[in-house]
Amino acid sequence: MNLFYSVNINESKSKIILSDDENRHLIKVLRKSEGEKITITDGLGYVYNCQIINIFKKQTELKVINYKLVYSNKPKLRIGISMLKKADRFEWFLEKATEIGVCEITPIISQYSEKKKLNMERSNKIMISAIKQSVRFYLPKLNNPINFNQFINESSYEKNNFLATCKNDDLKLFQNSIKKSQDINILIGPEGGFSKSEIDLAKKTNFTPVSLAENRLRTETAGVVSCMIFSFINN
Amino acid sequence: MNLFYSVNINESKSKIILSDDENRHLIKVLRKSEGEKITITDGLGYVYNCQIINIFKKQTELKVINYKLVYSNKPKLRIGISMLKKADRFEWFLEKATEIGVCEITPIISQYSEKKKLNMERSNKIMISAIKQSVRFYLPKLNNPINFNQFINESSYEKNNFLATCKNDDLKLFQNSIKKSQDINILIGPEGGFSKSEIDLAKKTNFTPVSLAENRLRTETAGVVSCMIFSFINN
Repeated sequence: MNLFYSVNINESKSKIILSDDENRHLIKVLRKSEGEKITITDGLGYVYNCQIINIFKKQTELKVINYKLVYSNKPKLRIGISMLKKADRFEWFLEKATEIGVCEITPIISQYSEKKKLNMERSNKIMISAIKQSVRFYLPKLNNPINFNQFINESSYEKNNFLATCKNDDLKLFQNSIKKSQDINILIGPEGGFSKSEIDLAKKTNFTPVSLAENRLRTETAGVVSCMIFSFINN
Repeated sequence: MNLFYSVNINESKSKIILSDDENRHLIKVLRKSEGEKITITDGLGYVYNCQIINIFKKQTELKVINYKLVYSNKPKLRIGISMLKKADRFEWFLEKATEIGVCEITPIISQYSEKKKLNMERSNKIMISAIKQSVRFYLPKLNNPINFNQFINESSYEKNNFLATCKNDDLKLFQNSIKKSQDINILIGPEGGFSKSEIDLAKKTNFTPVSLAENRLRTETAGVVSCMIFSFINN
């Protein structure tokens, strides 16, 4: 199944405009022509069965045949993850987390983070491509990068906040700390880990330190492993 | 902890030679000097505490202070995974599978595989780098690419053979099909999946089709997800 993505849907949900990348994919890669049918999602849970009406060089116009809302009652995983020096490793995390399943991603600037800016447009494109690839109808929310303290403060009123740190014999494994059907927030540190003052603040503010695995994981691997554990527990 | 890798260990296990990449890492990145102590693994479970005796431009000579065998009684995961058109996606799989934990990887040439050759030297370097990064003392075995039928035949006498295919309501999830402490073989197909005749052959030859997740996964993601599920079950 080839899934397309569009947010350009008219109010009556009868017409959809595909533009830019999606249009190129439709014409150049899949070589679709007028009259053919395709499936589109808006990334908000709606799935549209459409017929191609007009193909132009820059956009394609589609008539909606029918649509439905694919309701999701799955619990929500929100990840705060330290920015990484190497963009390709962070982008890989965005792709895989989206593919395996995540609700919200917040890039974090912590004391030992090596980068502060993220190309939001490029990042969103990677995530859109991943929902199409994995046939998902919900596009995870990608927030602008924020400071560690801000993330901690904003999550402080939530239940089930976890801070992933390196293996320590006193620490419980994340997989043994969460239960099915619970919304979870998890915070993943940079290569150098969190600073002592950051860990202390998190502990004071309703975050439980956990370990993701017995051996050391790179930041982006830790992010993906946490998605996988969450998905495993909720499958 | 900075872990180094070397297979150049003398018979009496009293001297180790670091060469090439490892030597560069020692001198240029970590700026170690003579007299300092470092930890080395041979990727076969041995860990050596060493002292630097001589640093030359192309190699470093170390005296072994003591060594131990880190015995592993963990069950073994063997993955047969289709070759991928894009080298970076396959390399990413090699890195992450090594980081999360795998015993043996066999690149598979199946009917719909898009590539037949693998740069073995480069692939091994990626895996060595991953065991160092994640502080593991066993380097997974990377086999030369083989045909689908060969993999199936060679595994036919083993227990617990699985074939990962796309979600189908009749299929059990992989996570519900395996038990703790069992050695497992899993076969992951290319983007286009396995052909009908391949699936039929696998079923006849002691392989059980399973699904890894509810949604579609890319080949390299499926490989990593199978490592994570195996690790989860055995943690």
